[in-house]
Amino acid sequence: MNNIYVIGVGLIGGSLAIDIKKNNPEVVIHGIGRNDNTLDEALALKLIDKKATLEDLGQADLVIVSIPVDATVKILPTVLDNISDNGLVVDVGSTKLDICKVVENHPKRRNFLAMHPIAGTEYSGPSAAIEGLFVGKTNIVCEVEKTTFKLQEKALKLFTDIGMRIRYMNPEAHDKHIAYVSHLSHISSFMLGKTVIEKEKNERDIFDMAGSGFASTVRLAKSSPEMWTPIFKQNKDNVIETLEEYINNLTHFKDLMKGDDFEAIFNEMKQTNHIKDILNGIN
Amino acid sequence: MNNIYVIGVGLIGGSLAIDIKKNNPEVVIHGIGRNDNTLDEALALKLIDKKATLEDLGQADLVIVSIPVDATVKILPTVLDNISDNGLVVDVGSTKLDICKVVENHPKRRNFLAMHPIAGTEYSGPSAAIEGLFVGKTNIVCEVEKTTFKLQEKALKLFTDIGMRIRYMNPEAHDKHIAYVSHLSHISSFMLGKTVIEKEKNERDIFDMAGSGFASTVRLAKSSPEMWTPIFKQNKDNVIETLEEYINNLTHFKDLMKGDDFEAIFNEMKQTNHIKDILNGIN
Repeated sequence: MNNIYVIGVGLIGGSLAIDIKKNNPEVVIHGIGRNDNTLDEALALKLIDKKATLEDLGQADLVIVSIPVDATVKILPTVLDNISDNGLVVDVGSTKLDICKVVENHPKRRNFLAMHPIAGTEYSGPSAAIEGLFVGKTNIVCEVEKTTFKLQEKALKLFTDIGMRIRYMNPEAHDKHIAYVSHLSHISSFMLGKTVIEKEKNERDIFDMAGSGFASTVRLAKSSPEMWTPIFKQNKDNVIETLEEYINNLTHFKDLMKGDDFEAIFNEMKQTNHIKDILNGIN
Repeated sequence: MNNIYVIGVGLIGGSLAIDIKKNNPEVVIHGIGRNDNTLDEALALKLIDKKATLEDLGQADLVIVSIPVDATVKILPTVLDNISDNGLVVDVGSTKLDICKVVENHPKRRNFLAMHPIAGTEYSGPSAAIEGLFVGKTNIVCEVEKTTFKLQEKALKLFTDIGMRIRYMNPEAHDKHIAYVSHLSHISSFMLGKTVIEKEKNERDIFDMAGSGFASTVRLAKSSPEMWTPIFKQNKDNVIETLEEYINNLTHFKDLMKGDDFEAIFNEMKQTNHIKDILNGIN
């Protein structure tokens, strides 16, 4: 592996560049992006070695597409058009169905591997990239059978080398499950932030009274709307389903309170405490 | 200050005992609790020096009441009955209105100071007590004017010495604001946990796909139902109000998605990103 091209050198693309370069000091990391200032920032931060364009992809051993999922859907066919026969293209988007669909009949489909490394923070851009972001995290790989075996091997080695566990799933199942454990969390957090901001016009009151619990539940409300809007759009049906169930559960909780059924309130919480055992496995 | 009595040696009571003892090695910390095993655990963990009962409170320089808020309302008049003229009683409950009310006409009202040190974790019991929990955190003090000045001074020195900022607020305002920045967060987290658990019967799927974002938003769902049920009960009207606003905001978000108005979805998130500036002040 000599030439790696990262399209979108932000939190995920930049963090991947750091870890891959550390394991493979000989590779040259090329950055591609719409915004030249962002690429200059990535250069200054030493996330990439060189700036490049889509026309250069013929030299790529690996292309990492790490841009918002609507942009991925648009650009992915062109990326595959430009790749050599031995080049591997991976994407890291938080939705998989539309991305897999847009290239399903592409002549270079076997050069593409769809994946979702489940890692991140609430920050974005080159300066958000950090070393070791992926250690112990899960990388969901979709439609692995549609990728050339040699390129599968190459990708899996790269991602296990940076510390990831690999899990296989079809795109439909990925999008459905991830709506629950990731997309819904972001909406619950954004709307919690909105509810509190609306109420507390005097921000000093929030600042003074909010503790670490609020900070934790509302942390994801710092996330990038540029990244999340296309995710919600592509995963619309699944996300709406999770939202309906979440709203139903909240309404039920509220009705129990209105009816002074605090024994049931207690049981709701007691049963959900079970999340402890599930979370013990995360981080 | 020679004798401090902690009624309820759990996360908050135990953590206070640690920090106060560190600053005042000469004091004897007495533990009081319903459950003798818990007191033995607190002794073994060296959170307390001795076990005691409510009958001993005549010797107390300070009594810290750190038990669920319904138990506080029940026991507080008795505690005040038993205290000496120079004894100070503080409570640390997450609601303040009912607690202040139950002692408003007590002959020893001036020996009581109502407070809410806004600090904690999702764990409970003596083993959850940790050193330095209160550093840089806010202690909301209610109805300070109803406490003897000398005892006010004593309490404020104690709590600023363990690193807390003091803010003053009336009980109504406390209960209203805290519903937004603390109580609602717990319900949003519990119901998020419930929604995901219900859907994902196969827990390995959650475990594999849930990242740090989900862990963060659902962390508070590990909290103790024994502690939280009475809080929701005492702060019922305020909590229901926050829940209604939260549900309305979620429903609005869902409707925007259903109507494919992703520009509005973007703006909802963009405006809430402003939470960054508010959270920068919290740890």
